Amino acid sequence: MIIITRPNATEEQIARVVTRVREFGLDAQISRGASRVIIGVIGPEALLREKPRGASRVIIGVIGPEALLREKPIASMAGVEAIVPVSKAYKLAARDSRGASSVSVGGVPVGGEEDVVLISGPCSVESREQILSIARIVKKSGAKILRGGAFKPRTSPYSFQGLREDGLRFLAEARAETGLPVITEIMDTRDLSVIEKYADCLQVGTRNMQNFSLLKEVGRSRLPVLLKRGFSATINDLIMSAEYILSEGNMNVILCERGIRTFETAARYTLDLSAVPLLKAKTHLPIIVDPTHAIGLREFVPQMSLAALAAGADALMIEVHDSPDLAKSDGDQALLPTVFDELVPQLRAVAAAIGRDL
Amino acid sequence: MIIITRPNATEEQIARVVTRVREFGLDAQISRGASRVIIGVIGPEALLREKPRGASRVIIGVIGPEALLREKPIASMAGVEAIVPVSKAYKLAARDSRGASSVSVGGVPVGGEEDVVLISGPCSVESREQILSIARIVKKSGAKILRGGAFKPRTSPYSFQGLREDGLRFLAEARAETGLPVITEIMDTRDLSVIEKYADCLQVGTRNMQNFSLLKEVGRSRLPVLLKRGFSATINDLIMSAEYILSEGNMNVILCERGIRTFETAARYTLDLSAVPLLKAKTHLPIIVDPTHAIGLREFVPQMSLAALAAGADALMIEVHDSPDLAKSDGDQALLPTVFDELVPQLRAVAAAIGRDL
Amino acid sequence: MIIITRPNATEEQIARVVTRVREFGLDAQISRGASRVIIGVIGPEALLREKPRGASRVIIGVIGPEALLREKPIASMAGVEAIVPVSKAYKLAARDSRGASSVSVGGVPVGGEEDVVLISGPCSVESREQILSIARIVKKSGAKILRGGAFKPRTSPYSFQGLREDGLRFLAEARAETGLPVITEIMDTRDLSVIEKYADCLQVGTRNMQNFSLLKEVGRSRLPVLLKRGFSATINDLIMSAEYILSEGNMNVILCERGIRTFETAARYTLDLSAVPLLKAKTHLPIIVDPTHAIGLREFVPQMSLAALAAGADALMIEVHDSPDLAKSDGDQALLPTVFDELVPQLRAVAAAIGRDL
Amino acid sequence: MIIITRPNATEEQIARVVTRVREFGLDAQISRGASRVIIGVIGPEALLREKPRGASRVIIGVIGPEALLREKPIASMAGVEAIVPVSKAYKLAARDSRGASSVSVGGVPVGGEEDVVLISGPCSVESREQILSIARIVKKSGAKILRGGAFKPRTSPYSFQGLREDGLRFLAEARAETGLPVITEIMDTRDLSVIEKYADCLQVGTRNMQNFSLLKEVGRSRLPVLLKRGFSATINDLIMSAEYILSEGNMNVILCERGIRTFETAARYTLDLSAVPLLKAKTHLPIIVDPTHAIGLREFVPQMSLAALAAGADALMIEVHDSPDLAKSDGDQALLPTVFDELVPQLRAVAAAIGRDL
Repeated sequence: MIIITRPNATEEQIARVVTRVREFGLDAQISRGASRVIIGVIGPEALLREKPRGASRVIIGVIGPEALLREKPIASMAGVEAIVPVSKAYKLAARDSRGASSVSVGGVPVGGEEDVVLISGPCSVESREQILSIARIVKKSGAKILRGGAFKPRTSPYSFQGLREDGLRFLAEARAETGLPVITEIMDTRDLSVIEKYADCLQVGTRNMQNFSLLKEVGRSRLPVLLKRGFSATINDLIMSAEYILSEGNMNVILCERGIRTFETAARYTLDLSAVPLLKAKTHLPIIVDPTHAIGLREFVPQMSLAALAAGADALMIEVHDSPDLAKSDGDQALLPTVFDELVPQLRAVAAAIGRDL
Repeated sequence: MIIITRPNATEEQIARVVTRVREFGLDAQISRGASRVIIGVIGPEALLREKPRGASRVIIGVIGPEALLREKPIASMAGVEAIVPVSKAYKLAARDSRGASSVSVGGVPVGGEEDVVLISGPCSVESREQILSIARIVKKSGAKILRGGAFKPRTSPYSFQGLREDGLRFLAEARAETGLPVITEIMDTRDLSVIEKYADCLQVGTRNMQNFSLLKEVGRSRLPVLLKRGFSATINDLIMSAEYILSEGNMNVILCERGIRTFETAARYTLDLSAVPLLKAKTHLPIIVDPTHAIGLREFVPQMSLAALAAGADALMIEVHDSPDLAKSDGDQALLPTVFDELVPQLRAVAAAIGRDL
Repeated sequence: MIIITRPNATEEQIARVVTRVREFGLDAQISRGASRVIIGVIGPEALLREKPRGASRVIIGVIGPEALLREKPIASMAGVEAIVPVSKAYKLAARDSRGASSVSVGGVPVGGEEDVVLISGPCSVESREQILSIARIVKKSGAKILRGGAFKPRTSPYSFQGLREDGLRFLAEARAETGLPVITEIMDTRDLSVIEKYADCLQVGTRNMQNFSLLKEVGRSRLPVLLKRGFSATINDLIMSAEYILSEGNMNVILCERGIRTFETAARYTLDLSAVPLLKAKTHLPIIVDPTHAIGLREFVPQMSLAALAAGADALMIEVHDSPDLAKSDGDQALLPTVFDELVPQLRAVAAAIGRDL
Repeated sequence: MIIITRPNATEEQIARVVTRVREFGLDAQISRGASRVIIGVIGPEALLREKPRGASRVIIGVIGPEALLREKPIASMAGVEAIVPVSKAYKLAARDSRGASSVSVGGVPVGGEEDVVLISGPCSVESREQILSIARIVKKSGAKILRGGAFKPRTSPYSFQGLREDGLRFLAEARAETGLPVITEIMDTRDLSVIEKYADCLQVGTRNMQNFSLLKEVGRSRLPVLLKRGFSATINDLIMSAEYILSEGNMNVILCERGIRTFETAARYTLDLSAVPLLKAKTHLPIIVDPTHAIGLREFVPQMSLAALAAGADALMIEVHDSPDLAKSDGDQALLPTVFDELVPQLRAVAAAIGRDL
């Protein structure tokens, strides 16, 4: 952390800042410029810190001087103009020396040096027949993991809210028949145990990316977690939310870019593909892309899928529906089975062009 | 709802759209232009619809033809270019014929024709002494409601997470001494019963504005709910989230503008004061403003408070801390007691200038 | 255009709206819903309209009823709730029946069914030696067009502003030696004649996308125009700016996505690759992508170039500099020649995977 | 400027960075942390630098070490992780020791300790009668300066483009009759001399805020310049554009907040009132607000005007039209004369409440 003083800071103010820094067992190195003083805060790279919880477990977070001081309002001390963080606020998610991690979703590896994975299925589980039929379709085209929502986050309370446990049961049946592991969304801390009975991977949706209670809860689950980027979360926010899950002990986190909210209204969201290489440089976690929810219009899903793959995504999550005109949610964006089937060989060709398999 | 066809739509495609509309018991009126057909969807203004829940209660949602069709992917039917909603997706929150509502927070009315209310206190409850001391200070300056967080949503898992039930107990003690009703944040559906024991108003934070499980849960509470706008939620999204709470039977919802995320980084968020008159035109719910979290820098809180009041806010929520340098969260943004005390008469003068009392 | 009335609009108000519509020689068709009236405005698809200018030329703009009425504030008439445009505000840029156009840049075709084109060169022309050296390098690697700025738009008045006519002369010399046609930026209407002497294509930069005087001026040039999207322009705004150029008689316009401004700060801008297929669906003009200025960090340019190609871009504009540490502008983002040279075969492979040549 | 190295930077890389810094006659102070090295760049506060131009004049820009190094891509040197600017990129616009400046518009002072000023008039000059009539109306209600566009920046080439010199002549006539000085927009460097013949203040519009050729040109004018914030310009960008004008020798610049583009679509733009106190803290230039173009809906202009005043604006620019239904541009947003007349006393009361006159 670097502390920059105001041009007119007094010696007394500077001394008070230095004292504050040293109270935390950290060292303060001072550089004097023509009009400002720069104070470099230096300390042991990894301080241990107990994170007590109501429960009996004690987790040890490994944090540096930044994290210690970040909570203290040094920026508002007299004479201080700005605070510049140097080390990252996240540790467990950081790439650093580690290589890229791979996370197993019901036996299918995602990330690292592994093949690119197709995750597919409908937006919502609507009936036993529907999910079984779509599961067979996407499996045949090449999908390796099945997605489908049983608990649905809907903007309107008057919209279809999902089949709940029935939906989970139908997903498990589809897995039994097709062998495809199942990803489904969790929206409420109270639903964890029921979802854990049926699913292979927990999805935390864009609107819950900073639902910290939920993040902590899935951090204690034995299942991997697919964490979708909040549609107005920065890349750094996304990594911090992953850190919540990791810091509870669950090391199997997959990040998902799914479009951000911008001024542009021609598409539903703006798919931020630069997030893919940026996240790969900052963290070791697998990065996947959901082009369907981002663009929101079926006609443009193939192009965005190809682009996401070329940008380096470890998996693609593409919605498919065999009768989208009758879908209970997001029917406008799901690919028809025939279109999906034609897209897969193209995806395979692009994967090969960048040296990966699919 | 209006359906606009593509210039090259066939008669058969148009007929199929009309059939779909009529399947829902709605009428389709057709206008033919030079190159496009416009289909007006018309129906009974209020259709009743049962919303079954696991529990024994049955809530009747009052919805129009829009809501019925909105879930159906007519936009993706062949020959359709665009869908234009006409009536609002919300009903219970709509202003319509109703006048502005007032919501009672522990006996203090907020909204409607009532006086402008000052809500104040620290970001987090840090200790019994701290909250008692600040409660006395803000009451003396003119605050009518006390705020303070016991459960804290923090971007980093390594930051102070709140005193939990201890914090609630200290808040209740501060109320007992000062008479100020208490607003505090709820982050987890499982915490409702404990918070209901101590608080006068539940706050749903910006990161949980679309945590629909939480919205439904507080919709069943007897306490009023202060719903903060998600920092990337549109005004319409905010009203839809209020509709979730209202549709569960809790009619005491207060909306709060607290800054949105934009490209500008000079302030923490961009305070969107146009939301105040826009929300007043669209809903009957009280609208308040939190200038502190929006601007994030104590130096500019007074100007933004005055502006929010002039824009028509029904209440202001302003953070005050008596030793911000030692605050465990957001110390950079809290006003010093002396500054708050000097601000109140200015706020009173601006309120008077626009014909309101404070 | 559709006019939607307020629930409480009186018959008199509705009649006044209808009268206004008919004053423009247009027809008004009325549909009555339960609480609102919908007025469809219908007219001859193409009204001719003279656009007089000080000069002796007269251009005939082909516009529909929308454009006629758009300027009239019907939205503010009593009883009107909303106006919904149906036909597009642009005509000459619209895809409609036309296929994709190809534009010739000094003999190199861009767009349509043509091969994908690599445009490369430094950000600024810094010296004769520099531009000659880089032109040779990028030509050897496979670039077909040379870029380089002689007039530089810089945020700070204290930054390098370009070599002006000297820079143009060096560019022309590089063309003479390598045969690569030259694209360079125009910032001022007064510079058109000098730039026309040297360049093969005029670039209008992101900050001038709505400099309407400049758009009109380049609309009268014999050179093709590369129009970069304003970093906060919607896709529709971009097409309207192209329409300015087209409506002056210059039919050779190439659109360029180069990143938009969002809340994300990890990259310089957010590259909006969904703009590529969306623009292709809306206009017949060629669409190219500039990944360099979008991401702003050399390390991530290759991934974004591959993604842009996979999304369907007709050309890529990639900055290359042989000694970026000494560059006078944007050195952090230019690729090293060796990295560019390794990237080209990968781009070729991705192009082949989607059925195009490069 | 501070240079932060990567955790794995070699001694050789660090030495090369230090050498580069010293080549510019600047000093490099090194602090070594546990894993990173921080290099503070220190130099004479004000280096003089000649800015040669084709013309015979030579302007001396006063810049610090930051500006010198900013153009050099140190950020891309091996071993460097980040560059943190310390001093501002602008000098002449900076507040620093200076108090707030006041700028005279045809004798009416704006900014500093002066009274709040009302600037009013129509969006466009449409006819001699129209501008004369509106000038009389707004003068009577209390406006001190007249606005009106003769050259109009319009998104569509098919929209009304302004009366050009005729419009200027009518504005001058309105000034002659009412005594109100005139502000009007300049869009093209070639129009400066004709506009200077008639106007008292040049307006640079939101779409030309980074039209650097135009900024330089108005920087050489004897007239004051009203510089509107680009709708996606940061506060820092706005100040840098002002610096362009100031660095050419024109010290009379007024800044204007007029709404920024965000994801919210309920209003035309999001009025960023936090820009008012933030700009006042950063620069000495007067800050005014245009609520009309920001909100874009006449119904909400009064509330936003009151809020802008309360936030500390030095002047308000409010559009008034006596027959907005017939306006040739932006008729939906102009206030009716009666509404404007009722608003002025309210504005006066709010001004008094914060200790200012109007």
